[in-house]
Amino acid sequence: MGPPCVIGVDLGGTKLLAGTVDRELNVHHRAHRTAPGGDRAAVLDRVVDAVQEAIAAAPGEVRAVGFGIPSLIDRERGIAVSTVHLPIADLPFRDIMAERLGLPVVVDNDANVAMLAEHRLGAASGARHAVLLTIGTGIGSGVVVDGQLVRGAVGAATELGHMVIDMDGPRCHGTCPNRGCLEALVSGTALGEAGLRVAREDPSGGLAAAKGSGRAMTGALVTELAHDGDPGALACLRTAGLALGVGLANIVNIFNPEVIVIGGGVIAAGDLLLDPAREEMRARALSPSRDIVRVVPARFGAESGMLGAAVLAFMELHS
Amino acid sequence: MGPPCVIGVDLGGTKLLAGTVDRELNVHHRAHRTAPGGDRAAVLDRVVDAVQEAIAAAPGEVRAVGFGIPSLIDRERGIAVSTVHLPIADLPFRDIMAERLGLPVVVDNDANVAMLAEHRLGAASGARHAVLLTIGTGIGSGVVVDGQLVRGAVGAATELGHMVIDMDGPRCHGTCPNRGCLEALVSGTALGEAGLRVAREDPSGGLAAAKGSGRAMTGALVTELAHDGDPGALACLRTAGLALGVGLANIVNIFNPEVIVIGGGVIAAGDLLLDPAREEMRARALSPSRDIVRVVPARFGAESGMLGAAVLAFMELHS
Repeated sequence: MGPPCVIGVDLGGTKLLAGTVDRELNVHHRAHRTAPGGDRAAVLDRVVDAVQEAIAAAPGEVRAVGFGIPSLIDRERGIAVSTVHLPIADLPFRDIMAERLGLPVVVDNDANVAMLAEHRLGAASGARHAVLLTIGTGIGSGVVVDGQLVRGAVGAATELGHMVIDMDGPRCHGTCPNRGCLEALVSGTALGEAGLRVAREDPSGGLAAAKGSGRAMTGALVTELAHDGDPGALACLRTAGLALGVGLANIVNIFNPEVIVIGGGVIAAGDLLLDPAREEMRARALSPSRDIVRVVPARFGAESGMLGAAVLAFMELHS
Repeated sequence: MGPPCVIGVDLGGTKLLAGTVDRELNVHHRAHRTAPGGDRAAVLDRVVDAVQEAIAAAPGEVRAVGFGIPSLIDRERGIAVSTVHLPIADLPFRDIMAERLGLPVVVDNDANVAMLAEHRLGAASGARHAVLLTIGTGIGSGVVVDGQLVRGAVGAATELGHMVIDMDGPRCHGTCPNRGCLEALVSGTALGEAGLRVAREDPSGGLAAAKGSGRAMTGALVTELAHDGDPGALACLRTAGLALGVGLANIVNIFNPEVIVIGGGVIAAGDLLLDPAREEMRARALSPSRDIVRVVPARFGAESGMLGAAVLAFMELHS
C-alpha cells in the first residue's frame, strides 16, 4: 500500500487535468481530457470519468478531491457562480461531485489554487506576503496576505488583471467593461494585437512576413520572433514589459509582498519581458517595498492549477 | 472613579492631538499642541507634556497610550522608520515614551489607526472587508481584509494613493518617484493645480477672479467656488471625481470590499466629488463586486487618527 493521495482537478474551459497526488506533491497519475464540451450532463460525466481514472491509479487510499475552476466560487455552497466557458454555473457542483465520487470534495477559483501551490511548495514558499500573476490569454491572479489567501466579501477579490494602469487606454477583453486594464496591455491577447499593429506599420519586418505567410498573430508568435532577434517583436515585448512594470509597481505599493511570482504562457518571453518590467517597477514603486520584493518565474507551469487543487484538498482534510 | 481610559495621540507633522478616551470612545479631554517644531528633544518634551495633560484630565485610571504617526512604522521595535515631517526617525520612540510616561505604549501608522477607528466604531463597522481613503493634501489609506489590517512584509502596504491609474500622467508629489498616481490626480494638491490651469485657460471665470484677488489656489478654494456654482470649479471637481472613480474601480476589483470609506479635507466637496466617482466606478469595475460595495463618507473627521490610536491602545491591552 502506497502513500495516501488526493485527486487535484484543473477544470479549464478547453481542457481538464486530474492528477493523483500525494502529500509531497508527487504526481502518480495524470488523467487528461480535452475540450469537456457538450451539455451539462456530458460535462459532469466527463469530469467523473477522469477523476475515477485518477482514483483507480492511486498507489494508496484516496481521501478527497479538489477542483480549481476559472469562475467566481461561492465556497459556502460549493457553487461556480459565473463560469463563462463551462455549463455548470449555479449548479451545486461540490455536492453533486461528492455524491457521485463518494469522497469529500472542495472547490475554489483556479488562480487561487495556483497561488496555493506556489505558496506551499513553489516559488513563494516561506513568504508571508506573496502575489501570483498568471499571464496567458488573460491574467489570473492570487494574493497571500499574512499567510492567507485574500478572497474579499464574496470571493471576487484580487482581480489584478483588471487593475487600470492607463485610464484612457484600450478596451479590455471579454466581459470586462473597463479600459486600460493590465490585461488589456500585457496579456497574450494584447501581445498579438501589438504584433498586428507593428506588422501594419512595418511591412518589411519579421512580423509582417510571418503574418504574410499565413501564421496567426499570437503572443507566442511575437515571443518566438523576439527570441530570433526581430526588432519589431522585441519592441512589442519591451512595451508590454514596461506596462507590466507599472502593474508590478502598483502591486508592490498595495501589498508590500516579499515575492511576486509570474507564470502563464507569456512567461516564455523570459527576461525579454521581465527585465523591462523589473526596471520600470523599481523606477516607480516606493522604498523600502521596491527594494525587498523579488520578481520570479513560477515553479509550477501548466500543472499549477491541478497541484493547487490537490493542496486545497489536503488542507480541507485538516480544517 | 470614572471609567478606565487610554490616551490616543495623533502625532501629525504640523499639529498634535492627545485625547483621553474611554472604551466607548467618549473623549473626556483634548490636549492640542500646534507645530511640534524644534529639535528632537523639544519635540519629545512637547509630546510628553501633551500626554501628561491628557492623563491628568482622565476620570479614571489610564492604562495605555497609543500613537498614530505619518510614517512607516517598525512595529516590532516601535520605531518610526521614515518620518518626513518629524525629527524622530529611527529613534526607539515607543520605548522612550513608555519610559517617560510609565505606561504601556503602542505605535502605528496614522492611516492604519484611522482605518481601525472607522472599522471598530465608524462607517465600516461590521464589515469584514473595508478600505479607507483619506484624501487631503495627499492620500492616506488603510485596508481591512477578513477583519485584519493589511500591513505587508515590512508594514509598507496599502499605499493606495500611489497606485498608478494613468501611466503617462502627471508627476506625483513629495518623495514618490512615480507618475499618474491616484494622489497626483485627486488630492487637494491636484485640485489646486487643476484650479490654476482653469484660471489660466479661462481668464473671465470665477477661479481666475479669485486668483486675481490674491487668494491661494487650494483644493478648499476650488471646492468653495464649486459649491457657489462656478462652472470651471465644478469641472475641476468632476474631473477629479472621475479619476477617483477609476481608483475606486481598482480598489473594488482588488479587494472586493463591502465598504469604501472616504475621509479627509477633500470630502468637503461631498457629492460633487463622490457622485462622478461612484458613477465611474460602477461603469468600470467587475460584477458582482461593484454591485455590493458601498462608498460612504467617514464618520470620524479630523479626530480619526486620535480615536484610532486610542482603539489601538485598547487592543494592545488585550493582545
